[in-house]
Amino acid sequence: MPSEFEIIKRFFDRPARHALVGIGDDCALLRPDAGLELAVTTDTLIEGRHFLPGADAEALGHKALAVNLSDLAAMGAAPRWATLALALPAADERWLAGFARGFFALAERHGVDLVGGDTTRSPLLTINITALGEVPAGVAMYRAGARPGDDIWVSGELGGAALALKQPGLAAQLPELAARLHRPEPRVELGERLRGLARAAIDLSDGLAGDLGHILERSQVGAVVEYAAIPRPAAFERFRELERDCVLSGGDDYELLFTAAQPQRRDIEALSRELKIPLSRIGAIQPNAAAGAGKLVVLDAAGKPIAHRGGFDHFASG
Amino acid sequence: MPSEFEIIKRFFDRPARHALVGIGDDCALLRPDAGLELAVTTDTLIEGRHFLPGADAEALGHKALAVNLSDLAAMGAAPRWATLALALPAADERWLAGFARGFFALAERHGVDLVGGDTTRSPLLTINITALGEVPAGVAMYRAGARPGDDIWVSGELGGAALALKQPGLAAQLPELAARLHRPEPRVELGERLRGLARAAIDLSDGLAGDLGHILERSQVGAVVEYAAIPRPAAFERFRELERDCVLSGGDDYELLFTAAQPQRRDIEALSRELKIPLSRIGAIQPNAAAGAGKLVVLDAAGKPIAHRGGFDHFASG
Repeated sequence: MPSEFEIIKRFFDRPARHALVGIGDDCALLRPDAGLELAVTTDTLIEGRHFLPGADAEALGHKALAVNLSDLAAMGAAPRWATLALALPAADERWLAGFARGFFALAERHGVDLVGGDTTRSPLLTINITALGEVPAGVAMYRAGARPGDDIWVSGELGGAALALKQPGLAAQLPELAARLHRPEPRVELGERLRGLARAAIDLSDGLAGDLGHILERSQVGAVVEYAAIPRPAAFERFRELERDCVLSGGDDYELLFTAAQPQRRDIEALSRELKIPLSRIGAIQPNAAAGAGKLVVLDAAGKPIAHRGGFDHFASG
Repeated sequence: MPSEFEIIKRFFDRPARHALVGIGDDCALLRPDAGLELAVTTDTLIEGRHFLPGADAEALGHKALAVNLSDLAAMGAAPRWATLALALPAADERWLAGFARGFFALAERHGVDLVGGDTTRSPLLTINITALGEVPAGVAMYRAGARPGDDIWVSGELGGAALALKQPGLAAQLPELAARLHRPEPRVELGERLRGLARAAIDLSDGLAGDLGHILERSQVGAVVEYAAIPRPAAFERFRELERDCVLSGGDDYELLFTAAQPQRRDIEALSRELKIPLSRIGAIQPNAAAGAGKLVVLDAAGKPIAHRGGFDHFASG
């Protein structure tokens, strides 16, 4: 069985292109560009909680990094560096090779250096990644930036990952749906290009209602969303009874939700065509008085409010 | 039971003094000082592996941060920011309050802002911290910096944490010994003051033999250490049979080991007096030819080599 140091050397120690020191010292050493701000985010995936035992190692390597890059994208930051803390039941070489393949394929596509980490034995497979990105001073998108009258936009389609989770059999038939759950594509380029166009942004990890709720709370505004305007996968035609909950409250889509002033519509539509990423206008930010502080109203095609539940809470259920 | 967001708000959301955005957005947003380099390190503590079930929450909050600050100190970096990923079996408010107390007491003492994190439910308590620090350009201490003829120095005493681990009953009698294991004091100020004095440095987390071995390997040199010169707690007088293994190969001391050119002896001794931290000269770096690449020779009082085992390997035992 390879030792801790062999594991790092064989599977994870690749030359860092944008670091003074990468893996192998007490710390990584970076030299951020002057005038740039540094965005930092951390996310953990735990066996039995975020993925099933026996989940594909390559997909896990991809997803563990993807969820962090998605957070960077939501701030408008360009990803640069990551650290990886792995707690593993055993030093399974096939698993490690697969995980590294998934991780580095995504990392290299976005110019991310793995600059440090920690490898430990644990009965429960746990993957923690901290990602660092850079954004020019003053243009990062905050959750607190939404203003009454802003349009609310989302990228891609919502609810697909939640449907794949609830209908694993269906996911096997429709690989595109399974990919949404297991290999989400972080909207890195979109996030960077939204700088200056969007006022507030968040990535949809816990579901539309919960994540939009964070923007409303931080921005001290309300919102009205037209349910019919929310893009969703065609597969829901066969699962009407699951649709609303998946689309409004299903997690794991890793699309971007952002708000922008109305005069930006043309530029946003042009960006959508250029990047070949669907961007849909699904509603509008309201003053607090109209909808209540942080209040989200979702309307059906007849203009009637639809009940919905908030986002996923890790401590809400047993 | 408090929700994930309430946990963060109640126990962890304190104003960040040195960050544009702290907890509560997709990412933290920092503005590193121009001309400084950024040191990044990550460490995980896992129940049953790094601490026993039922371990004191306040001590854990302290130690989880301390082991990361110790890595920063070994590079000569001043700690600035940290992220915290907590995986918890339950949202136990007393535990959370204790953990936060231990964490923030140490963080505030060293001016560290908690700027982000992630809270998840998991059957196995797992604590991951990523810490970021700053160091002026060009003065960080690398593992690769040791040169033949350098003195080898250590701070404090070695082996105490390992003894406390092996003799928990003794640790109860000698609170100072228990503190070495459960509440290690990272050598933050010493690390910063060694800039320009030390050539190579590492923190002793896995034991003297293993960690000095990393310096030897990276610097392509050998070393001779005089066992009698290694400072150790007086409690070993009652446990002679445990002493050598604890002193040479016991982990968790979080002292600094560093090498320095001989002309620096006076300044290092003056620094020791000023900081009131014992600094002991325990041996010398040798050219590769004398001791073999990366070879560590430990001599007893009669000049005979002492057998020793390398550092802790998380995957070496079942």
